[in-house]
Amino acid sequence: MASKVAKMLACRGGGHVRRSERLIRITKYLLDRPNCAVSLSELADGMEAAKSSVSEDVAMVRDVLAGEETGVVQTIAGAGGGVKFQVRVPAAVREAFEQDIIQRLGDVSRILPGGFLYMSDVLGDPDVLDFSGRLLAERFAESGVNVVVTVETKGIPIAVATARYLHVPVVVVRREHRVTDGAAVSVHYVSGSAKRIQTMSVSKRAMPQHAKALIVDDFMRAGATVQTVKRLLAEFDAEVLGTAVFMSTLEPALKLVDDYISLFSVGPLQEDQEVLIVPGNAKPD
Amino acid sequence: MASKVAKMLACRGGGHVRRSERLIRITKYLLDRPNCAVSLSELADGMEAAKSSVSEDVAMVRDVLAGEETGVVQTIAGAGGGVKFQVRVPAAVREAFEQDIIQRLGDVSRILPGGFLYMSDVLGDPDVLDFSGRLLAERFAESGVNVVVTVETKGIPIAVATARYLHVPVVVVRREHRVTDGAAVSVHYVSGSAKRIQTMSVSKRAMPQHAKALIVDDFMRAGATVQTVKRLLAEFDAEVLGTAVFMSTLEPALKLVDDYISLFSVGPLQEDQEVLIVPGNAKPD
Repeated sequence: MASKVAKMLACRGGGHVRRSERLIRITKYLLDRPNCAVSLSELADGMEAAKSSVSEDVAMVRDVLAGEETGVVQTIAGAGGGVKFQVRVPAAVREAFEQDIIQRLGDVSRILPGGFLYMSDVLGDPDVLDFSGRLLAERFAESGVNVVVTVETKGIPIAVATARYLHVPVVVVRREHRVTDGAAVSVHYVSGSAKRIQTMSVSKRAMPQHAKALIVDDFMRAGATVQTVKRLLAEFDAEVLGTAVFMSTLEPALKLVDDYISLFSVGPLQEDQEVLIVPGNAKPD
Repeated sequence: MASKVAKMLACRGGGHVRRSERLIRITKYLLDRPNCAVSLSELADGMEAAKSSVSEDVAMVRDVLAGEETGVVQTIAGAGGGVKFQVRVPAAVREAFEQDIIQRLGDVSRILPGGFLYMSDVLGDPDVLDFSGRLLAERFAESGVNVVVTVETKGIPIAVATARYLHVPVVVVRREHRVTDGAAVSVHYVSGSAKRIQTMSVSKRAMPQHAKALIVDDFMRAGATVQTVKRLLAEFDAEVLGTAVFMSTLEPALKLVDDYISLFSVGPLQEDQEVLIVPGNAKPD
């Protein structure tokens, strides 16, 4: 079998195999570059094929991914013509992911003193990060977001996974201004839990000009952290296009941030009592 | 053209198109699961095809990726038989990446007080993260690493990118023990720069049993941070299989850690003086 394949690959002139090879290479090329504009000329050069052949190949890749519901190959209008691959998550895969998370996090042993939920292990799981990144990127792929902003520490992995699929930089807001961040912009805020005045700062040079930001974090209770990040971003004249968290609390239902997406919501956390976790945002009555 | 493709896809019985579709789907399936064992039965079920056909398709994907030097499809011996996709970076791509980084970071405006190099913007760039992750995963794919351990904050994005391609969890060592980390193991150390006693702690439940760790960080000077992470990991009876950093300093050439991989090395940093950056580890005389 291996020798048969080797022979087929050697036979580069013969349309059939050549095409199979191109389909594999084009699929890989697009998947390696989520949300990036790729011109047909770039693909044709890479494949050493005519633009018309590559265009047919791309159409086939698009149709197959659309059939699977695992990705969309968008056509970019304009000079030269190009395409862009964006991730999609099929409904059945999303539901399986949600059930897995609800089962893993809905364990009384995860309730921590002070009404916190232990999630550090789950938030380090490569599949959880990848799925969360895909789900959030799917929601914001068409929004024009050009930077993902998060707050150290636990939101960073999900922010990185999301930024990968949106193909935008990640900027990390810090709780302290460190020398390695260079010049920084800082704001103060009163922390919700400790009622102390604290600082948030972000490296000036790391923030893109005309930033259109998606704020990503792991957990939201009242929303004071996100509210402060918004104030910090306002100092850069950045536009906030959305806020997305992995988990938010069902209570308080009214957050300081009125427009956010949460992958999961969790009910009140009391020791030795069942943990209620539901997919998506809390639905207000 | 679109209608032609639609017609070809509709014609599911006819070997040729069916095969093209399978090649696209198999390529995507493997790329979506780097370093994961995938059985041929799993693929055959997903494709609704015979195992023998899928086996030929996989061989073709393997040959094409090997030709491009962008990935390896490893065969897993044993019952059922399976495969595993691992990323590879072609030499030319690696060199282009290195030149880009050297050019961007070798700028006098990046020298910070105290002999630090400003890298926060570059370490948030999605392509830099993705390439760094691929390069480090390539080096450690066969090592048996089952967890990537990093220290907050700036090493986290590279650690997440590396862990994605190794398909292992990320564990974040923290400078302070927070309630949301649950039960934690802590060690103290004397910080190199400030000569103060400081703490590092890691959530107990986040660390896998029988951990075989790859330590990943953004920057290494003397190596005191990595040395402390190793002490912390020793408390878990974890085996450290490697240490990898994005940037290390050429001086001191002798680090507290004797075995590490660095993607780049930087010379002494003095204000208004040229920045020397070279690819790879410092070569001792």
